[in-house]
Amino acid sequence: MKIGILGGGQLARMLALAGYPLGLQCVVLDPSADACAAQVADLIQADYNDQAALHELAEQVDVVTFEFENIPAQSLNYLLENYPVYPPPIALHTAQDRLNEKNLFRQLQIPVPEFVAIDRFEQLQQAIVRTGLPAVLKTRSMGYDGKGQIVLRHQNEMTQAWRQLGGRPLIIESLVGFDREVSIIAVRNRAGDIYYYPLSENTHYRGILHYAQSCPDDHLQARAQDYIKCILDELNYVGVLALELFDVNGELLANEIAPRVHNSGHWTIEGAEVSQFENHLRAILDLPLGDTQAVGFSAMVNFIGTMPETAIVLGDANVHLHDYSKAPRPGRKIGHATVRSETQMELSDALKNLITRASIVKQ
Amino acid sequence: MKIGILGGGQLARMLALAGYPLGLQCVVLDPSADACAAQVADLIQADYNDQAALHELAEQVDVVTFEFENIPAQSLNYLLENYPVYPPPIALHTAQDRLNEKNLFRQLQIPVPEFVAIDRFEQLQQAIVRTGLPAVLKTRSMGYDGKGQIVLRHQNEMTQAWRQLGGRPLIIESLVGFDREVSIIAVRNRAGDIYYYPLSENTHYRGILHYAQSCPDDHLQARAQDYIKCILDELNYVGVLALELFDVNGELLANEIAPRVHNSGHWTIEGAEVSQFENHLRAILDLPLGDTQAVGFSAMVNFIGTMPETAIVLGDANVHLHDYSKAPRPGRKIGHATVRSETQMELSDALKNLITRASIVKQ
Repeated sequence: MKIGILGGGQLARMLALAGYPLGLQCVVLDPSADACAAQVADLIQADYNDQAALHELAEQVDVVTFEFENIPAQSLNYLLENYPVYPPPIALHTAQDRLNEKNLFRQLQIPVPEFVAIDRFEQLQQAIVRTGLPAVLKTRSMGYDGKGQIVLRHQNEMTQAWRQLGGRPLIIESLVGFDREVSIIAVRNRAGDIYYYPLSENTHYRGILHYAQSCPDDHLQARAQDYIKCILDELNYVGVLALELFDVNGELLANEIAPRVHNSGHWTIEGAEVSQFENHLRAILDLPLGDTQAVGFSAMVNFIGTMPETAIVLGDANVHLHDYSKAPRPGRKIGHATVRSETQMELSDALKNLITRASIVKQ
Repeated sequence: MKIGILGGGQLARMLALAGYPLGLQCVVLDPSADACAAQVADLIQADYNDQAALHELAEQVDVVTFEFENIPAQSLNYLLENYPVYPPPIALHTAQDRLNEKNLFRQLQIPVPEFVAIDRFEQLQQAIVRTGLPAVLKTRSMGYDGKGQIVLRHQNEMTQAWRQLGGRPLIIESLVGFDREVSIIAVRNRAGDIYYYPLSENTHYRGILHYAQSCPDDHLQARAQDYIKCILDELNYVGVLALELFDVNGELLANEIAPRVHNSGHWTIEGAEVSQFENHLRAILDLPLGDTQAVGFSAMVNFIGTMPETAIVLGDANVHLHDYSKAPRPGRKIGHATVRSETQMELSDALKNLITRASIVKQ
């Protein structure tokens, strides 16, 4: 069987690698000739709105999926009219617009930080009465890894922020003083069965995920599962979905969803019985889902901009390297490493070692 | 970095898949256009004695290895003169000839079943005085999966056996009434560090491995490690080596070595911290070795001749499928599945279920 993937980055690469043992082959569509998934899958090099290329992709595969949220709506509609596409495009539409996303949370009674849609500068003044300060002004669409957002701490920063982001549909949200950022990843099949991965605790640096740790038996696991179940069922979702949350004094506030495999679930490759990548493929092909239980304790560290030396990363015997074979570039995710241990204590030490080693980059 | 692999079967396929996360790419040389590793690696389609093709392979890679024992000596010598080849060809020479292999065991004081080299029919009569009956008459080279061997239970079967196998260098060995067949897989790097996987207990059916189970904490682990260490050090070995042994009343008798990744170690993909495939690559590239500890309890079942339906194999959530995407053919290994559990008891049940499901083949 063949899977078509819109987007040919590291997520598609890891999907393709997870597919081979199942006897699957992936074909990726990506505008870039050096898309890193093309090293392990066939590539159709084309823009996401190239209808002939979309046709070419869909004709040779059994199902189409995506690793990239910002697919133009008309491309998706074209595919939908003629081919099976999972996850359902309503999930993509929702995730493409922060306002839709927040409204969905509210509709499903999932707590969210206070938010107000902003289309004109005048609305901003009124909005901060509700959100308070500090607050975050964000573009409603096309933002990722901290791009397209500005933190407002004082009223006098509004004009400057508007100058940078204004003119596009915006949203302003209360900046929540959270204890930690967590995410839950779950997979739902066509029959509506849902398997949940253990929570991941995520630490960001300059807006980009720096490291993520598995949290087996977290006291907030059940609540996170309730929330993501509501979303999965509401969207009649098929595939892997990630829900990012803030833990504020033991209450979970929803931040955003990603309708795809997610960076905070990369540790599932070694740290869960069946990885998010394999389970996404199983779900969209209507195969039985794999166990999502944690296997020991795991943590993943992203390599951003530059790769440390392989021999240095692998300095501890329980470290697993994932080099995406991408060209180094500032701010670009080009690899990660996961460390797995039998106890939380051992993991904490191993993670510290790994972070230290990861920061040693050959000059 | 690039790795050249002589042979493009499922072992090369799994090596190539283990290489991608490390940022490695494999190139395989195989006489067959539909070598299953060619789906995940570049293929040079050529005979193993095609010197131009060997040159083409070696020129584009950093190191050459093999997944196939029966490489012609002259091909290997050609490569050796000009390129780095691991494991060392002395290991291949030894494994290519059962007499050399048995003599090595004896030289290293590793117990072996009684054996005698046979070149002429007249020697057979004399030999069975030493080996006793039943005994196994085997070709000294080119045998695998039970091919090229005949069990002798009575003196009057000698003429018939000689008619089938005679004319080639042979060896006759005592047929040992063993309690179980086990194997130990170990990996040695260029510095001489050795990591050992837990013993695997192997069950054959009609001369082909049917299923294999990990045996963490086996009472014979230490002895098996001693034996394989002697062999690894004697051969100044680099890479993964498998040693097959008979357990006879708690004594281990060496049967044979395989100077490569081995079918009885396929469970290490999910059932050990770092798999035999990744550790082989790490060793031959002089990277730090990965932890060989078992992660829970695992068992692997081979799919021979036909593939059961994917959805049936994956009926338990802790089953992992490996479909080699090979054309079905009687007696051919075309896939395997591994089941992993946290306890030996759970594993036994899961293995029984898996074997039952594996035997359900779509008509």
